[in-house]
Amino acid sequence: MRRFVVGRTKSLVNRYQRSRVLSSTPLLLDSPSSMAAPPSSSHPSPPVTLETINPKVLKCEYAVRGVIVTLAERLQHELQANPGSHPFDEILYCNIGNPQSLCQQPITFFREVLALCDHPAILDRSETQGLFSADAIERAWQILDQIPGRATGAYSHSQGIKGLRDTIAAGIEARDDFPADPNDIFLTDGASPAVHMMMQLLIRSEQDGILCPIPQYPLYSASIALHGGTLVPYYLDEATGWGLEISELKEQLEAAKSKGITVRALVVINPGNPTGQVLSEDNQREIVEFCKKEGLVLLADEVYQENVYVPDKKFHSFKKISRSMGYGGDDISLVSFQSVSKGYYGECGKRGGYMEVTGFSADIREQIYKVASVNLCSNISGQILASLVMNPPKVGDESYESYAAEKDGILSSLAKRAKTLEEAFNHLEGVTCNKAEGAMYLFPRIHLPQKAIKAAEATNTAPDAFYAHRLLHATGIVVVPGSGFGQVLGTWHFRCTILPQEDKIPAIVSRLMDFHKGFMDEFRD
Amino acid sequence: MRRFVVGRTKSLVNRYQRSRVLSSTPLLLDSPSSMAAPPSSSHPSPPVTLETINPKVLKCEYAVRGVIVTLAERLQHELQANPGSHPFDEILYCNIGNPQSLCQQPITFFREVLALCDHPAILDRSETQGLFSADAIERAWQILDQIPGRATGAYSHSQGIKGLRDTIAAGIEARDDFPADPNDIFLTDGASPAVHMMMQLLIRSEQDGILCPIPQYPLYSASIALHGGTLVPYYLDEATGWGLEISELKEQLEAAKSKGITVRALVVINPGNPTGQVLSEDNQREIVEFCKKEGLVLLADEVYQENVYVPDKKFHSFKKISRSMGYGGDDISLVSFQSVSKGYYGECGKRGGYMEVTGFSADIREQIYKVASVNLCSNISGQILASLVMNPPKVGDESYESYAAEKDGILSSLAKRAKTLEEAFNHLEGVTCNKAEGAMYLFPRIHLPQKAIKAAEATNTAPDAFYAHRLLHATGIVVVPGSGFGQVLGTWHFRCTILPQEDKIPAIVSRLMDFHKGFMDEFRD
Repeated sequence: MRRFVVGRTKSLVNRYQRSRVLSSTPLLLDSPSSMAAPPSSSHPSPPVTLETINPKVLKCEYAVRGVIVTLAERLQHELQANPGSHPFDEILYCNIGNPQSLCQQPITFFREVLALCDHPAILDRSETQGLFSADAIERAWQILDQIPGRATGAYSHSQGIKGLRDTIAAGIEARDDFPADPNDIFLTDGASPAVHMMMQLLIRSEQDGILCPIPQYPLYSASIALHGGTLVPYYLDEATGWGLEISELKEQLEAAKSKGITVRALVVINPGNPTGQVLSEDNQREIVEFCKKEGLVLLADEVYQENVYVPDKKFHSFKKISRSMGYGGDDISLVSFQSVSKGYYGECGKRGGYMEVTGFSADIREQIYKVASVNLCSNISGQILASLVMNPPKVGDESYESYAAEKDGILSSLAKRAKTLEEAFNHLEGVTCNKAEGAMYLFPRIHLPQKAIKAAEATNTAPDAFYAHRLLHATGIVVVPGSGFGQVLGTWHFRCTILPQEDKIPAIVSRLMDFHKGFMDEFRD
Repeated sequence: MRRFVVGRTKSLVNRYQRSRVLSSTPLLLDSPSSMAAPPSSSHPSPPVTLETINPKVLKCEYAVRGVIVTLAERLQHELQANPGSHPFDEILYCNIGNPQSLCQQPITFFREVLALCDHPAILDRSETQGLFSADAIERAWQILDQIPGRATGAYSHSQGIKGLRDTIAAGIEARDDFPADPNDIFLTDGASPAVHMMMQLLIRSEQDGILCPIPQYPLYSASIALHGGTLVPYYLDEATGWGLEISELKEQLEAAKSKGITVRALVVINPGNPTGQVLSEDNQREIVEFCKKEGLVLLADEVYQENVYVPDKKFHSFKKISRSMGYGGDDISLVSFQSVSKGYYGECGKRGGYMEVTGFSADIREQIYKVASVNLCSNISGQILASLVMNPPKVGDESYESYAAEKDGILSSLAKRAKTLEEAFNHLEGVTCNKAEGAMYLFPRIHLPQKAIKAAEATNTAPDAFYAHRLLHATGIVVVPGSGFGQVLGTWHFRCTILPQEDKIPAIVSRLMDFHKGFMDEFRD
């Protein structure tokens, strides 16, 4: 006699006196039996096929590295194998916010500190003083002293090294003028794992919904799909510069509730991805009020907090806004995501980031800590870098001037590129493009002729994907079709980063214009 | 009229002409309606409580950083605040395979290369030649040349930098004498995310089972719990040095099948964690045959492949074994996990690792690639380090001798420590301990007196946890109770790493002996 225990496992005495072994993972245990085991089946379990994998994995999509990127990689190989085989000599990856892949240089101070922490044996050597700035050496010592045993090769505390979290909390305080607690910081390998952790915590089934902007960054749809929840869309209003209307939030929330969906959280991306808008303080206050009233967790994607390009807008964290409204942790559950991949640093490959988790009870925090512990810790270089971006060189430090010059150079150039590309898009026939107030993207709308839409349909392709494929084949420029982010039915967009270096922009603009004119000439109704 | 679409979403035209926005994430869409939205509910969604979070998160447990570690951290703080407040002057973390936290030094060559790749600006400087070995400089150049644009700060290909995967594949070939394909390699932030990826792919519901050794490393039980599957235990036989019997696998598989469980995969940890045994080739062949016959994916945790301490045992990868049996990718689905955290390098904080995925169809590989893409890539330093451990300095390289001395020093010392601790445990009254043939752990069995078991029950604690707590309070030594790994009912164990430095071992042994004697004197029946 055997027994299958699902859910709460129990201690059973079986003929081997085997124990209840493992917490409450559903666990198959056999109970005392004198019967021989049945003979091994001659039908093996089905092999791994698309029909037998987790359907949540099948459902998940991530357009930023979808079909178009696979095609671009193929073209790149063809170009390498046969130079001249395409009407362009390089692939320009404007599909992804990956600044250093397009020749943005890292901030020297940050890299100095990382190198010294990777190889602390050289810190005492005289040659090092010729190679590294004095404040980088000093900072490396400070950081090493914050790491138990100066062991940069050890797993850290599951939330990240305490001293680095102290530094980050101090950086948040300096930014917001409100207190931050290092125990609220969870350092992560970039922002993506942090988003997954929150989705994993909040989503129980398809009956749990997460309010997400449309258009959205597809990490959110992918993560919701992988965790088996329901994406409850709220639409940003393109006509008002991708405005976020509270009436729309309310309407979608009620619609979801009326279908039996429990909406758990609201995702806000500010500055917006792919839309580039920067929320006003008033708007942020309304959003906080809405979440508080409706008991929603506010998941604030603030990874572009350093990327604001217009003088009339400024980044304000949702924590600062909610605290300035007098709301503390008891009033609103708020998670702020930050990353070392964006900003002026653009250190995507370092996979550093954190989430600041406020307004959750101690027992929920323990659950988040437990999940973080299963993966032990995020990478230490990424942790160090997260502390550096939240505490860069200050006026008076040896590196300050070069640091400030590097930072300002990158941000002012990004602003210029955003402007130039936005204007170029707006000059194309049938294209309108909102300003990139922030982030790293433009999301132009293309009013495609019916003939182009029909041609796309004939090849079983979404019209915006059809356009993006033609663009890639003609120019080597990789953009992501709007359908990967979501868009109002019958409208077509694409996301294009503002990241190619300035000296490449004129050629890009002229290739874009030529292509677009040719495309319209071919398909104009 | 509104409509809720679960599963396959459909394009709906609503009054805003909003589109089908996002692939097939369950998605809430509203349909054409002239009705005003219902007024906002006055009942907010329930706040986030233990009752309303994902129950899979609640179920998940991870003893390696469980209650005992939290207690140890508290004692450490108390010691810092009040030196002398406990009968020991430091906490010895023997709970976790984290060598550098216990003063193991990193391999110099590896750190040199990492530092140079972090700050390539110094590669051309003359001072650098005084500070770094010539082959480290050369290796850094080689690696940079493998990275598009030499951009160590860019997201890489979702599977990792192609040139580094080439190096790793070559390392696998050199190790196994069978071909390895760089396209089979997925670089990951340590082995844990790779394990999660495979569990996520394979587990559809509680009706899907994963065969896991008992005792096991609790990453597996945690990951199975988080992904909602069923752990199907197979028991290692302590009496034969934690032997893995095929008859046991068969019996547990049939038991699972008879309960309607579809067993998808078999986890084998070799060398074993927490058990330290190294499988014989014959045994490995039987396991391969079993997986092939039963259509199971073989998930081979081979992160301790460099940690073998006995002359009569040698590590053989499951890929080598299966290829030597004449089985190719069409015959068996095999995933091998490797990590930079273990071996003689012990670079836990770098979060590098990979999985080699063979025997899956192209469409399944695409699904794995897609899931990898959602998180963009693993950290580049970890990727570089994974390439270094699979291609360390060779005879004739400038660093070779110092590298070999560092490596041999670490491994021979680990072997000595394993032996010393094993003998010490076996000298304790009522304790028996198998040899650590490999890995980083001993898993002694404690035959606890009934009086101790009753005392534990009186405090609502598992007897092995009771022992571990008493040990910690008396000596500062942190071990993990066997119940965190699973054990035969009525047997009690703990896992203790062999990682404290050699000069600390005598004191540890004497503290252990004193504590144990005192404990037995107190509770002897």
